[in-house]
Order: sequence, then C-alpha cells, then structure tokens
Amino acid sequence: MKIRKVALVGGTHGNELTGVYLINKWQHNPDLVRRGSFDTLTLHANPEAIKACRRYIDRDLNRSFALHDLAAPKAHYEAQRACELNAILGPKGADKTAVDFICDLHSTTANMGLSLVVSNESDLTWDAVRYLCAKEPALHLYRWQGDEEGAFVDSVAPHGFAIEVGAIPQGVLHSDLFFATERLVMHLLDFFEKVNRGEAIPETEKEVEVYDHVDLLDYPRDASGALNGMVHEALQDNDYRVLQKGDPIFRLFDGSEICYDRDEPLHALFVNEAAYYEKGFAMTLARKILL
Amino acid sequence: MKIRKVALVGGTHGNELTGVYLINKWQHNPDLVRRGSFDTLTLHANPEAIKACRRYIDRDLNRSFALHDLAAPKAHYEAQRACELNAILGPKGADKTAVDFICDLHSTTANMGLSLVVSNESDLTWDAVRYLCAKEPALHLYRWQGDEEGAFVDSVAPHGFAIEVGAIPQGVLHSDLFFATERLVMHLLDFFEKVNRGEAIPETEKEVEVYDHVDLLDYPRDASGALNGMVHEALQDNDYRVLQKGDPIFRLFDGSEICYDRDEPLHALFVNEAAYYEKGFAMTLARKILL
Repeated sequence: MKIRKVALVGGTHGNELTGVYLINKWQHNPDLVRRGSFDTLTLHANPEAIKACRRYIDRDLNRSFALHDLAAPKAHYEAQRACELNAILGPKGADKTAVDFICDLHSTTANMGLSLVVSNESDLTWDAVRYLCAKEPALHLYRWQGDEEGAFVDSVAPHGFAIEVGAIPQGVLHSDLFFATERLVMHLLDFFEKVNRGEAIPETEKEVEVYDHVDLLDYPRDASGALNGMVHEALQDNDYRVLQKGDPIFRLFDGSEICYDRDEPLHALFVNEAAYYEKGFAMTLARKILL
Repeated sequence: MKIRKVALVGGTHGNELTGVYLINKWQHNPDLVRRGSFDTLTLHANPEAIKACRRYIDRDLNRSFALHDLAAPKAHYEAQRACELNAILGPKGADKTAVDFICDLHSTTANMGLSLVVSNESDLTWDAVRYLCAKEPALHLYRWQGDEEGAFVDSVAPHGFAIEVGAIPQGVLHSDLFFATERLVMHLLDFFEKVNRGEAIPETEKEVEVYDHVDLLDYPRDASGALNGMVHEALQDNDYRVLQKGDPIFRLFDGSEICYDRDEPLHALFVNEAAYYEKGFAMTLARKILL
C-alpha cells in the first residue's frame, strides 16, 4: 500500500505538554516533518483544554471516538470537537479516510518510559511498531483498547497508535522525553518513506515483546467509595514490573499493606497515573507475550 | 509563651493531594493530632478546588492573604474563601488571633524532597524549624516570602510555615512522602507540647542551613512570549544544586542550551514546578546561609 497522508496529533489532553509543544515546534518548522512521498498534517486536538492547561473541558476527548459518540454527539465541547476531528482525519470506518495513519502524542505521570499504546491490529500499524522497536530498543509496547473500546483519537484512521512517555507531571515539560518522543516520530516518518519507496524493511520481520492488556485495578476505597490508600512505595515508578502473589501493591493511609492476590503473575502498567484517579484505576495489568 | 491552638491546613491547592488526604485521615482519627496542652484544628482550605482537583477555581488561594486582599475582597471564590479563613484562623495582624500557628501542607512537582517554606521571622516559628531539622536531618529550609509578599495562608497567624514535599505530580499521592509529611507534623505537635510544659529543648539551640531566596527565573520565551525551551535535562530533578556560571539550565526546543550567567553561584529550587509555568518562573534562586 501507499501512504498518502499522516497525522501527528498533540494536545488531545491539554495538560500533556510534550505533544502540545512538539506540534508547535513542527508547525513553526514544517520541514522537520515534511517527507517526499506523503503529506504530514500536524494538529492540536483539544485547543480549549490546551488553553486551560487541563486534560479536558467537559469530557475526556480520548474516550470520545466510539462510533455511537460520533453518530449522536452530545452538546458539550469534546463531543463537538470529536466530530470536527472525525471530519478532518476520518471519517472513522470509511473506505477512504482523510489520513491513513494517526500518531497521537501523550504523556503520563506513570513511569512508562518511552512506550506505544497500540489498539489497532492492521499490518501497517504493526510493521511500524516493529520498525520503531528496532530503532529504539528502550521502547515498550502496550496492546490496549482503552477502558472504553475503540474510543481513542487514533481509532479514526485505519492505522495508528499513541505514544505515551513518562514519568512527567501534568502541565510540565521534560527535555529528555521531549526529544525522545521527537526521535520516535522521525523514525516513524522515515518508515513511511521506506514503505512508499517499496524498500525491503528487515526491521519489520522481527518478533517483539508486547504487554497485552488483561485488567484494570482500582485504588483501595472505604465503604463510601473514598480512597483509603495509595500505590505502595515499592511499586511506585516501577511500571512494567511483574507482580507475584503476595507482592505489596497498595499502602493504606493507616500504614497497612494490600498485596497482589492473583495466581497468575501479571505486569503493572500506568501505575499511579493522575488522570486515572477519577476513572477508578490505580494501574493496569498486562501479560507479556511475543508477537 | 503558651500555645493555645494550632491549625493543620491541607488542600490550599486542590490538586496537592498529600495535604488533602492527611487532613481527611486526621479528621477520621482525631486522636492522632490531639495533644494535652493545646487544641489542634484540621481544615481543608479550598474545598471547591479539591472537588475539581485543580489548584484553584478563580485565583491562587495561597496568594490571596495580603492585607489589601482581605480588606477589599474581590467577588471571586478564592477571595471570599480567604476572608472566611481569615475569620477562622486570624484575623491577620490582630493582637489576638484564633490560632497561634498555621502549618500548611503542600506538594510540588519539583524534586524538593521534604522541605519547609518559611516566611515568618518569629522566634517560635524558628524554634519549631530548628527542632524539626534535628528530628528530620533530610529536611531542607527555604526562606521565602513568595512571589507576592505576605500573601500565603500561613501569614494569617503570628507563627507558622508551609511544608512542601516533592517530586509529586499534581493529582497524585506518593506513599513515602505522605508518611514523611505526617511524621514531620507529629514532631511539630510534640514540639508544642514541650514548649507548653516549659521543657528545655536543646534541639532549638543549633544552627541550621537555610536557602535564602534571591530571585525568580523565567523560562526562555520567543518574541510573542511563548515558551521556546525547557529546564535542561541536567538540572531536572536536581533541586538545591548550586549553579556555577556556564552551567546549562535550559534546553531550547531547537536543541541548543542556555547557561547560567551570574557571577555569584546560587542554588536552584522549585525547578520545573507545574503551577509556576503560568506565573512565569522556571525555578527560584537562593543563597545558602547558616542561621
């Protein structure tokens, strides 16, 4: 296949500044993302949230792209914006979409390092993923549909994924992860050039290690539903660690511990992400597989 | 002097959860902060901001306690709330105030460890500070009036300070710093008991190392005032480091560096605090002195 148009999207969450300022940089220096064989679109997904430096105004934009959301949009800001983006990038599910690939730039307060969240099964998506793994050996892969299936921004195009980097607080830039994200995007654009030129790309042949989503785990709560504990200090900033039965995962406010109690060892991801307190998950659990 | 009443205040910034949840804990378990010789008041300073998990609704509450703010309050939420708190805790500047000492609990995205921000010169305040330094050798002291002089919550009582702990993202709890903050408050309450019993307190006799505020340093910006760089990766998370002329302090988005250019070596504090982007400072600069 030939890639005609690629979208680089930042500021889907207005307080995740890495993507916001990378898009600014590329809009001021379009040569950086211009390639000969396809068009590159750079875009701030949620301008009002960026202005307010908040994740969203009315609702999480990155949970607003399910087909039923787009078919019968509610009156609030993100629902309207999702429809606008669907027109610019999609429409979702159509045979012919405005862009072929969406790379959506995020950051997280969890110590996820440099990672991709992949919820697309297309060959092009996974060839791109394998290519990036070969170029950036520190890259982690998380296969996840999200807590609301198929509702991510990148689901609007036939191919794509999100880049997640951390640990970065909301409303903050970290220089190292800013440039690491940019390097990853440059490799991605190079990959599309190779595909369009019909080059052999041996990097796409290799097996990759994938964290395959299994479950969401909420914080400990009291009878009223209020938090009564935190991520255990031994697990904090240790994303990707495998949890064995009996490992402490939460520390209650009274000092006592709660331990992991499943028979199957699973890996903890998105540990203590600020935006997930309101969603009710302290971490996600994943199984490591080769793909 | 005899201490009659002490206020422990959390949630002055609604997204600094350490204080919010410590106050919750103590309100559910009042014995933890009850002492024989004085009353302890526990209080959420900004309930609406806590509900919204934002620093503030209309204006930074911790910059709303200047005498002119309290004398002619504006119509917005934090101005009203500042007046209510002034009535509960003060009134500021009066001979007789409702509480003698305010300990205000904060967290920061900067890697400030366990620290006190002291803007009060009273003997009781500094005796308490010296006592805590003896009990917690890792404690750092920052003498700072804030960017708006005398406008902190703790300025309402004749004695007091703020506890600042980090690095913690906004909207997140870290178990280790939650309990470290609690330990510090327990030592503080013990100190008041000793004062009220008239005990000799040898810990108050020792010299302490203080970071004395000198200046605020903004991020690099382009001609329009927009950010065009970040804290340098070598300085990120290295709060309290001394800056020598020529040390890189900022990394511009184009990859180039900006270096510290003052003749006097000063220490960098509050490096890359999320809430200070809008205030226009990337770090504060302080001189290390013995007091």
